[in-house]
Amino acid sequence: MSKTQAGRFFEDFTLNEEIHHALPRTLTEGDAALYQSLTGSRFALQSSETFARAAGYDRIPLDDILVFNVVFGKSVPDISLNAVANLGYAECDFLAQVYVGETLSARSTVIGLKENSNGETGTVYVRTEGLDHRGVPILSYVRWVMIPKRDPNSPAPDAVVPELGKTVERLTIPRHKINRYWNPTLSGSSHFWEDYSTGEKIDHRDGFTVEESEHMMATRLYQNTSRVHFDAHFTKESRFGQRIVYGGHVISIARALSHNGLGNACILSAINGGSHTAPTFAGDTIYAWTEVLSCQALENRKDIGALRLRTRAVKNRPATDFPEKGKDIVLDLDYTVLIPCRR
Amino acid sequence: MSKTQAGRFFEDFTLNEEIHHALPRTLTEGDAALYQSLTGSRFALQSSETFARAAGYDRIPLDDILVFNVVFGKSVPDISLNAVANLGYAECDFLAQVYVGETLSARSTVIGLKENSNGETGTVYVRTEGLDHRGVPILSYVRWVMIPKRDPNSPAPDAVVPELGKTVERLTIPRHKINRYWNPTLSGSSHFWEDYSTGEKIDHRDGFTVEESEHMMATRLYQNTSRVHFDAHFTKESRFGQRIVYGGHVISIARALSHNGLGNACILSAINGGSHTAPTFAGDTIYAWTEVLSCQALENRKDIGALRLRTRAVKNRPATDFPEKGKDIVLDLDYTVLIPCRR
Amino acid sequence: MSKTQAGRFFEDFTLNEEIHHALPRTLTEGDAALYQSLTGSRFALQSSETFARAAGYDRIPLDDILVFNVVFGKSVPDISLNAVANLGYAECDFLAQVYVGETLSARSTVIGLKENSNGETGTVYVRTEGLDHRGVPILSYVRWVMIPKRDPNSPAPDAVVPELGKTVERLTIPRHKINRYWNPTLSGSSHFWEDYSTGEKIDHRDGFTVEESEHMMATRLYQNTSRVHFDAHFTKESRFGQRIVYGGHVISIARALSHNGLGNACILSAINGGSHTAPTFAGDTIYAWTEVLSCQALENRKDIGALRLRTRAVKNRPATDFPEKGKDIVLDLDYTVLIPCRR
Repeated sequence: MSKTQAGRFFEDFTLNEEIHHALPRTLTEGDAALYQSLTGSRFALQSSETFARAAGYDRIPLDDILVFNVVFGKSVPDISLNAVANLGYAECDFLAQVYVGETLSARSTVIGLKENSNGETGTVYVRTEGLDHRGVPILSYVRWVMIPKRDPNSPAPDAVVPELGKTVERLTIPRHKINRYWNPTLSGSSHFWEDYSTGEKIDHRDGFTVEESEHMMATRLYQNTSRVHFDAHFTKESRFGQRIVYGGHVISIARALSHNGLGNACILSAINGGSHTAPTFAGDTIYAWTEVLSCQALENRKDIGALRLRTRAVKNRPATDFPEKGKDIVLDLDYTVLIPCRR
Repeated sequence: MSKTQAGRFFEDFTLNEEIHHALPRTLTEGDAALYQSLTGSRFALQSSETFARAAGYDRIPLDDILVFNVVFGKSVPDISLNAVANLGYAECDFLAQVYVGETLSARSTVIGLKENSNGETGTVYVRTEGLDHRGVPILSYVRWVMIPKRDPNSPAPDAVVPELGKTVERLTIPRHKINRYWNPTLSGSSHFWEDYSTGEKIDHRDGFTVEESEHMMATRLYQNTSRVHFDAHFTKESRFGQRIVYGGHVISIARALSHNGLGNACILSAINGGSHTAPTFAGDTIYAWTEVLSCQALENRKDIGALRLRTRAVKNRPATDFPEKGKDIVLDLDYTVLIPCRR
Repeated sequence: MSKTQAGRFFEDFTLNEEIHHALPRTLTEGDAALYQSLTGSRFALQSSETFARAAGYDRIPLDDILVFNVVFGKSVPDISLNAVANLGYAECDFLAQVYVGETLSARSTVIGLKENSNGETGTVYVRTEGLDHRGVPILSYVRWVMIPKRDPNSPAPDAVVPELGKTVERLTIPRHKINRYWNPTLSGSSHFWEDYSTGEKIDHRDGFTVEESEHMMATRLYQNTSRVHFDAHFTKESRFGQRIVYGGHVISIARALSHNGLGNACILSAINGGSHTAPTFAGDTIYAWTEVLSCQALENRKDIGALRLRTRAVKNRPATDFPEKGKDIVLDLDYTVLIPCRR
């Protein structure tokens, strides 16, 4: 048996199989600094200890997308090393806030399998959970990927496609009161939960040009091993003829850009669904705009409310006209943020 | 009202207005490591805990230019997002040493306004202060920028141009004795205060080629949001047709290069004046040379002296002939360092 | 005398001379995060505090090659600033594990000198030691470099070529039992010491394309000042017409790639010998393969064994056919790792 991991093919997945992923990872202030330097994240809660304390936290929480990307990275060698496409996300629930010093690990359960009609590939659905050092889940999400079959003639498994919620039903909410000392001058935005309305569209204005070294540094920080991100020699002969930017880096960039317009939406509570609608390459400039899908009051909470948002990232054109379709759109993300109410 | 910040125009500034900037920022060991990795800084005091302790510090101080750039970054969204040019600095006073764990915030006061004769732009003078977590100033400097008017027909304000000192008058000096255990082998230089003389010229020899990802990573580390540094799509149609390197990154590089010749000048005490005389772009190689403007003994201090220096950074040519003028010069910085005396 | 260091020439070295290098350097979590982000290192022992504790360590050890590169970097201004070639390494002994918070310094002793027959260059052999904050050696290695003579007519010194061991004789082994809780699922490899055999060849499969900013960031992190890595203007007129990637970065990459096939070989114990057989440039894609030279049981230890390995890094072609010769080979490294035995 080869000692080198070459990744699984479609036949290698079994329904209900639980896969424990390698490489527990202790997160440090170094990771947080690199995340900011590579993505441009500017949310005050994740930048400042004084701000975090005023908002009722003991210390600076780590950026939620950093945590997502680290957990995702662990699952890559077992799930998607040979993936043809990363088709979508659903039911992504941020179950607990993660801090510097935490050691994250991950496991996935195969919850669906469906061979494609061409007989050459199949779709694998997994629920992946990120775990803290005690093994308690801090993140849970479903993703599905297209995986080639090792042998087109191997028999198809019974098709099982999981029913996925369109939103995360019960949001995880911090227990403490959030808005007591929330300072809009310091957060960089004077817009609170009450200021947003369903159907509102926000152009985040700024653009961000991606470089090869940046997306690779981010992706290595997450210990994601998918060769399409790192290997210019190998990808020269691939469909796109070049390295592809890891989709999670595009999510990080879109989230960072959204500060300009959503500066108080510091807490990501759920990703209801999402897809990477086109590839991003080094040299592309990413812009983003957001539609407010709904404004949700939270039971027994007057300090904080939820906004369900749909952010689209586009490349090489501004988002001033709020584009909904087209080859320019590289990310379509439906997610829920928590945002303080006016005091 | 749009929720997206698009920056102020000349008409939006009022004399004596105090502007509190967003995003307090807690500095970490991650920031210090990135600063070294991105700039090549090599001063022993900022590299080594054992060296810092021998020099009378409790722990490693953060690089002064890192602190400057973080404070500067906070002021960008309110002051210079639409700036046509960053015209100059003066009276930059480093009031206290900053350490890992400190949370910095910033505020600016408009101290001058003058419309330009073309009626299309004006110069805004601000004094910006960096504050520690208690709100105590740790850095104070004046800068002036050229800002477009929103409407060329709007009336000009009364012209007020502040009188600016040519040097920082009272230098902030560490109270403890610096040179007791200062080891020139470990600092990388055997040249002390007594070894420098007025008029002396030093070529720092080494060159440093700037890459897009490096200047953007540094500039994002400072949460500077000026789009000219990050957006290749937008800048394609701009005057230079490409992204511009943030001037503060060029200061960092020039300061780092100056270690070769000024290795004991570990403490930056003041920036008396400075200007970015030409833009720097990715691909440019930066060299630097320094003229000693004066050697200043400090009252009641035999352990340490001051050197007033003028460092010019040039691009794409060595500085061996000490160039004073020309399009190659990208930075002209007049500043004061503290340097140990021989024991 | 110029205050600027321009590096030593062959005549400037004296046999048995001891050179204390500048810039003690305190290593932080920021350095560890950058190392991972720049090299893609994935060994569990260096990634996870929970894993490190289960393996009997108090906390996460720093990557051995990071330590090697930091010590090497200190020696550059005194030894190899003017080197024409970095000819080889031998007898590299990792004497103690290094952790975050340690301050490293370095010294070198000239152990050999031999002028080349052309009279224009000579080979300098040094033993370099890395020291912890107490001055206790934590790393010791020999390297030899080709250095130009300042004056081809200056007399040649008596030729002294040190006798160098082909391996490091007495390996430094952690005292505690390593394999008690070693979890192969978490380490990412189910292959233990018993699973490797002499003569076995392992293709590490993945490729890694090097970018200018990445190798420069890594090399600046090590405070290595050799201008051939940083200065595109200067190197345009040099032999290769461009910047050269620091060889230690190539070692880091090869070691990181080797995780795929050697995932449990978390502890580097010795580098028996090595050479950079061809230059690496930005844009090159690095692959690696390893031959098991020998499997060595350790006296009185049933928890851990040693493998002597020979890893070759190649560029711009996969290593699937285990190439032993050719211009594609950029690194040939003979080293010894410790790897847990099956329980």
